[in-house]
Amino acid sequence: MQTLDSEFKPGLEGVIAAETRLSRVDGQLGELIIAGYPLETLAPNATFEEVVYLLWNSRRPNKDELDAFKAELAQLRDLPEATLTLLEAIAIQQKPAMDALRMVAGTLDLDQPNLSPRDGAKLTLARLPTAVAAYHRLVTGKAPVQPIPDLSHAANYLYMLTGIRPTPAQTKGMETYLNTVVDHGLNASTFAARVIIATQSDMLSAVVGAIGALKGPLHGGAPGPALDMVFEIGSAERAEPYLRDKIEQGERLMGFGHRVYKVRDPRADVLGVAAESMFESMAADSPEGYELYTLALAVEEKAIELLEEYKPGRKLQTNVEFYTALLLHGLGLPTDLFSPTFAISRAAGWMAHCFEQLETKRLIRPKARFVGDIHSSWD
Amino acid sequence: MQTLDSEFKPGLEGVIAAETRLSRVDGQLGELIIAGYPLETLAPNATFEEVVYLLWNSRRPNKDELDAFKAELAQLRDLPEATLTLLEAIAIQQKPAMDALRMVAGTLDLDQPNLSPRDGAKLTLARLPTAVAAYHRLVTGKAPVQPIPDLSHAANYLYMLTGIRPTPAQTKGMETYLNTVVDHGLNASTFAARVIIATQSDMLSAVVGAIGALKGPLHGGAPGPALDMVFEIGSAERAEPYLRDKIEQGERLMGFGHRVYKVRDPRADVLGVAAESMFESMAADSPEGYELYTLALAVEEKAIELLEEYKPGRKLQTNVEFYTALLLHGLGLPTDLFSPTFAISRAAGWMAHCFEQLETKRLIRPKARFVGDIHSSWD
Repeated sequence: MQTLDSEFKPGLEGVIAAETRLSRVDGQLGELIIAGYPLETLAPNATFEEVVYLLWNSRRPNKDELDAFKAELAQLRDLPEATLTLLEAIAIQQKPAMDALRMVAGTLDLDQPNLSPRDGAKLTLARLPTAVAAYHRLVTGKAPVQPIPDLSHAANYLYMLTGIRPTPAQTKGMETYLNTVVDHGLNASTFAARVIIATQSDMLSAVVGAIGALKGPLHGGAPGPALDMVFEIGSAERAEPYLRDKIEQGERLMGFGHRVYKVRDPRADVLGVAAESMFESMAADSPEGYELYTLALAVEEKAIELLEEYKPGRKLQTNVEFYTALLLHGLGLPTDLFSPTFAISRAAGWMAHCFEQLETKRLIRPKARFVGDIHSSWD
Repeated sequence: MQTLDSEFKPGLEGVIAAETRLSRVDGQLGELIIAGYPLETLAPNATFEEVVYLLWNSRRPNKDELDAFKAELAQLRDLPEATLTLLEAIAIQQKPAMDALRMVAGTLDLDQPNLSPRDGAKLTLARLPTAVAAYHRLVTGKAPVQPIPDLSHAANYLYMLTGIRPTPAQTKGMETYLNTVVDHGLNASTFAARVIIATQSDMLSAVVGAIGALKGPLHGGAPGPALDMVFEIGSAERAEPYLRDKIEQGERLMGFGHRVYKVRDPRADVLGVAAESMFESMAADSPEGYELYTLALAVEEKAIELLEEYKPGRKLQTNVEFYTALLLHGLGLPTDLFSPTFAISRAAGWMAHCFEQLETKRLIRPKARFVGDIHSSWD
């Protein structure tokens, strides 16, 4: 149907497509509210399971509710046999982990009956880390590690990656990361999940679609390149000439500046603090890790100084990607796992948005304007 | 970011999110233009490969181009081994075909390198029918049938379902159906595909997301119930009492009326003609098929007469679902395959929209309005 009096909104820019209680992004103030709580107070103090419960139920769980929720998630972690078989076949092809995740995500409920949205959400959340970890093991020539039910979501993910129980500092680092990136307004992947679930489809279908959107290079949030830059610089005294050269060539410094945040990215602050305690706790065992950390701080300081010199007033600050890369690298994750690990967390946000969308009981169905030719007939 | 002066558009109703050359739906006139051609002249006369080429290239192929396109698609039909293994595992669970399709769709490029959007589109289009047919065979306890490269897309799909080369009349019936439902403006699944590809993700990711949206009961277009009604009625003389009863109980007659088309659904006309010639050509071999067809016509006539009597002026007409059900049933497809067969066709439209969206080089990213509480801190 044509509606000639409506206005074309390319990219739906500025259009409000949903109301949400889940997160509020204030780019001018550099503030992020997650399910009612300022990120700075939530992310370092809550467990990931608490944050998910809060997002899915609009209130904090009491101790019994939280214990029950954790236990339920923990017993859902095992993958269907066919998913493991598929992961083995993908590993032979040495596909990037994000491709593998898109390929197997749709199979995570293969051994289940039709699930309610809530049960589908729990299953999906519980199994995504198992799939990512199993693929990482297989693609690096190792056997998958069975999940351990008494470990938390964050600790168990690290355990399944390495086969070693993580230290409290490592678990805290992963947990703070998962909490920090769990939701961020109506980004493209979250919107994709809402469009899919709005047809009353199932949770896993929405998450598979969102993973597909997250795969796209325009989605943003790929933390790999920020770390690559630190590695390339290699030592603190090389930071200045390297960065000057980049800026003078007109290249973007990966890890600095953000489309929405005009002052600071609040997630960078939270992850910066988490990285500091994690690297400090590991300094004795992993001096080279701590060295990289201090190098990264030196690069960051110099980058902000030079960005202010070359682009005065732009206030380009460290963004979430910079500290994500540093933190996840410190936890032993290769770059290839950064996006899948992001998906493991953001899936909780996607599904929280799906619950909200389901409540509205309506399709998301904008119009298209026909701008093609019309011929009189085919022959 | 909050934009308090924007207006909330629930479901994005009335918002124009895209410009398209692919199809124009005029509900007031009951007209559907597909890639510039009136449906009535295109669907019965073009091959499906011609329609796809036209949608993907904005012009008709010459003979050499069409031959090359058909050959390319035909040699891409074989599934990766791992996809077949996965289908076997899903068949053991006796999942609905639409669930199976969502589970395996993401694996269709498992044996391929990173594909360009165009190569990804060809691969996806070529392999979807193979996956649907293989699943149908497996779930009914039969071995999958290998595709035959010298059969057209439509003929080969029927062949892989049955193991028998279809008659020209059967191929024509399937081809007309595929042509008829290949695109229909910016419906929910097409929009999902656009949202995903807008991040510059890959074609298969967009199609997997669209399949997830199509699975939802609110998506519309499920043709099963219309046929169920005809079966329930069973004989022409039972049509009137049955239908009167339904209408007086306030129930909707499945297969009649359409949200957009206020006069007639042009797709129903096209499929009605296709059904007529197909059933007539099969009358000698399948008298019970022809009997069902004449029963359906009697039911249709009575339904329209009674709808005019009970709801005068509403002009409720036969919609696409009614004749889809009849035609696909006549081709031997069980109800469970109706939606996957729809997806096999519509995937060409989804990917045509993806090409258009990629050209715009922009994300689809509307805003959300935060309506939640804000607490001062977590603890």
